[in-house]
Amino acid sequence: MKELTHFNHAGEAQMVDVGAKGESERVATAAGCIRMQPETLQLIQSGGHSKGDVLGIARVAAIMGAKRTAELVPLCHPLALTRVDCSFEIADAPPAVACQVTVATRGRTGVEMEALCAVQIALLTVYDMCKAVDRGMVIDAVRLLEKRGGRSGHWRAAPEADPGTEA
Amino acid sequence: MKELTHFNHAGEAQMVDVGAKGESERVATAAGCIRMQPETLQLIQSGGHSKGDVLGIARVAAIMGAKRTAELVPLCHPLALTRVDCSFEIADAPPAVACQVTVATRGRTGVEMEALCAVQIALLTVYDMCKAVDRGMVIDAVRLLEKRGGRSGHWRAAPEADPGTEA
Amino acid sequence: MKELTHFNHAGEAQMVDVGAKGESERVATAAGCIRMQPETLQLIQSGGHSKGDVLGIARVAAIMGAKRTAELVPLCHPLALTRVDCSFEIADAPPAVACQVTVATRGRTGVEMEALCAVQIALLTVYDMCKAVDRGMVIDAVRLLEKRGGRSGHWRAAPEADPGTEA
Amino acid sequence: MKELTHFNHAGEAQMVDVGAKGESERVATAAGCIRMQPETLQLIQSGGHSKGDVLGIARVAAIMGAKRTAELVPLCHPLALTRVDCSFEIADAPPAVACQVTVATRGRTGVEMEALCAVQIALLTVYDMCKAVDRGMVIDAVRLLEKRGGRSGHWRAAPEADPGTEA
Amino acid sequence: MKELTHFNHAGEAQMVDVGAKGESERVATAAGCIRMQPETLQLIQSGGHSKGDVLGIARVAAIMGAKRTAELVPLCHPLALTRVDCSFEIADAPPAVACQVTVATRGRTGVEMEALCAVQIALLTVYDMCKAVDRGMVIDAVRLLEKRGGRSGHWRAAPEADPGTEA
Amino acid sequence: MKELTHFNHAGEAQMVDVGAKGESERVATAAGCIRMQPETLQLIQSGGHSKGDVLGIARVAAIMGAKRTAELVPLCHPLALTRVDCSFEIADAPPAVACQVTVATRGRTGVEMEALCAVQIALLTVYDMCKAVDRGMVIDAVRLLEKRGGRSGHWRAAPEADPGTEA
Repeated sequence: MKELTHFNHAGEAQMVDVGAKGESERVATAAGCIRMQPETLQLIQSGGHSKGDVLGIARVAAIMGAKRTAELVPLCHPLALTRVDCSFEIADAPPAVACQVTVATRGRTGVEMEALCAVQIALLTVYDMCKAVDRGMVIDAVRLLEKRGGRSGHWRAAPEADPGTEA
Repeated sequence: MKELTHFNHAGEAQMVDVGAKGESERVATAAGCIRMQPETLQLIQSGGHSKGDVLGIARVAAIMGAKRTAELVPLCHPLALTRVDCSFEIADAPPAVACQVTVATRGRTGVEMEALCAVQIALLTVYDMCKAVDRGMVIDAVRLLEKRGGRSGHWRAAPEADPGTEA
Repeated sequence: MKELTHFNHAGEAQMVDVGAKGESERVATAAGCIRMQPETLQLIQSGGHSKGDVLGIARVAAIMGAKRTAELVPLCHPLALTRVDCSFEIADAPPAVACQVTVATRGRTGVEMEALCAVQIALLTVYDMCKAVDRGMVIDAVRLLEKRGGRSGHWRAAPEADPGTEA
Repeated sequence: MKELTHFNHAGEAQMVDVGAKGESERVATAAGCIRMQPETLQLIQSGGHSKGDVLGIARVAAIMGAKRTAELVPLCHPLALTRVDCSFEIADAPPAVACQVTVATRGRTGVEMEALCAVQIALLTVYDMCKAVDRGMVIDAVRLLEKRGGRSGHWRAAPEADPGTEA
Repeated sequence: MKELTHFNHAGEAQMVDVGAKGESERVATAAGCIRMQPETLQLIQSGGHSKGDVLGIARVAAIMGAKRTAELVPLCHPLALTRVDCSFEIADAPPAVACQVTVATRGRTGVEMEALCAVQIALLTVYDMCKAVDRGMVIDAVRLLEKRGGRSGHWRAAPEADPGTEA
Repeated sequence: MKELTHFNHAGEAQMVDVGAKGESERVATAAGCIRMQPETLQLIQSGGHSKGDVLGIARVAAIMGAKRTAELVPLCHPLALTRVDCSFEIADAPPAVACQVTVATRGRTGVEMEALCAVQIALLTVYDMCKAVDRGMVIDAVRLLEKRGGRSGHWRAAPEADPGTEA
């Protein structure tokens, strides 16, 4: 039977030993979305020009958040990231902002957690900046889309977990 | 028409001035869940005894994450929290772990962001500890359930945003 | 003769006791600039639309940096800021970006350090984003412009310390 | 025409991909100064013995600040520094403290930002410790003096940017 | 029978609710020591002049560490400290450096943890700076000496827990 | 005569240059204990089931604290840890909880400081969670037990520094 690797035989939490793993290129892509009222989405879309660039600020928060993942997730290994990319897409029906983040490093463990953490911080920042007009926004479908590198190799989310069908 | 309060008239981001607001008791409750394979849920449930307490660790991460919200969300005001409560519930169909966090402070702004951030870090920690056996887990329905205190008073999420119907 | 207040009689550093001071509204404004090649300034000015919003990102960095001042400056008191405002101005001769930050709190010590720290982080971020095209940029004239509140009351920089004459 | 590398073709900020760069020895030296009243400089000079070691504390702040650069500058890559050196010099006419910091690492990106950040935190700390006697101090001429390593190789600031002529 | 207050009735960790407590002046003093070879102690004592000020740097680390206690201790409430004082004493037989820290705030919870954390970081810093010459140093007798303020009032350590008898 | 390596010839603190050292596997084990009333120890022992898992939370704090050592200890090099292990043992006479932490990395400097820091944060967390019932607890015998790797090779604490004799 499978075991949770973050615990030793006595069930005690540990930061798993990755010292014996070789360094390799690691890439992970995660995604998620935040659903909102149509009027809220309009406010976001009309920004970026004169009214305030919600997504530009959320992107900065995502990149900075990726760098701090190991401070937030207790058993996560610290890693020197070599790349963080964050993009947004507007969906109209239902009204939502979708976020996708790709993180890369050259190291002994993967960067799935960094990609997921960045997506969450991005969507949290969108919530913060729009909450005065729409407290009922919902963050949904935060998940790993793909990872490459390391012993477990290439992994892709099953198609049913794709953003289009999640929303 | 409504405006996004985190921008001035030139569309420039700012940390909104809350100096004129009085201090009052603020409470917020947020929730969310992480969906997974039934076998993954079983591993989590069998823990807490000898195999490792996933939810106990996620709870610590949630509480510590709540305290760091203002470092992660760019325009969020720093606040001295007076209470953080985090609880989990197991759902079988579909298999998921639901998380609920209540945060309180006595201050000039609300603690909605702290409650949402804590929920996200809790679910992210569950993902981290189980990802070796289930990379396809999805974090869903992260949202504010209720807030009290401050000028905007009491707010509750509409019933359709309740966890039962989100899953 | 005047004494440095951050040391006791033995010359040992201390975080000065401000517990006996009353809470009052504190505001501070600081400024500074970064001088650069005319071509670099043009790249910054042409951004904000399609080419990348250097100043928007520097503004976010300034606001987030203000919140972390007490972690960086050893003897600085931690404070719950109630407002951070950051604005930029373009100067053509000599080519430079000027930055001004206003910070406020209601507390027992002033926010001069937070305003200065935010200006520095903003200008450092401009440097970072433009350094691939112009390594010779110089950060200049970082100083306090004005402070209000607290026992020492209102203070304004002498006119000769104004940005116009510094550049 | 030159482009700002921290943005993609759509003008969106990104942490630039450095994964393909080889690791090499990187060194950067930055400098800056803080101008002050002659009496303030005297207080600093008379310290280090019995009255309090302003520059010793500023040096510690500089070293610790260098380590946190990637948390403060949004698009900066995290790096494991292998060396941080910070020295001060007293200038009498005009009265000022000059600071110089050298940082080194073995990595895929340079350490210019770490050296500049350390200089800024050092001077900010001097301001903090002397502000009770001199609020009008001005931080000036913060700039890169030299860098080595990496694809762009060796770079030195032009002589006119030297401290002597800046003050 | 007494209960541990950091857990609810289900045994789940929580940040205890202190919102109903009034704000009052809180002071705590903690102490501890680090025992070492006589030659190591001599190196520390000969510093402060030309050879390097170990205790001056440990003092800065203590003050900065006090400010970060709530980030390190999971269920500790964040507090805006109003005072941190750190002093050292040299003991010859057995050779040791003793450290004492007093912390104060005006708030809803005490500052015992901040005082203890500061002592630990101070002694850890002494270890770091001397470890190249003496790896066998031992940190001992870290404890609370006294606290004032709050519902539980004044508390003093029993005499047998005094440093003199611990060593 | 031996010299403290964290200072240059002028006695100025520096982060020592380790750039010329090769990367090697580094392991360090540290230990320490916290002495308490027998009733307090009983409360801790009865937890882990329904009353709250003090040691489980302290273990998480230890692991997270190890990752932040370089932020707390001024001249400590930042390192990407590859493993952190934390275990506790109950001692009855005198009543105490002993903690042992092993940290590993592949890098240019050792991880002694990370292991010691983790032990201290673990014991500090035990204090925090039990202080409402026992303020007189004392943290003792925090020391390095063993280190491997690096130029100085293998080192073990002398037997008289073993936990059994320290308590």
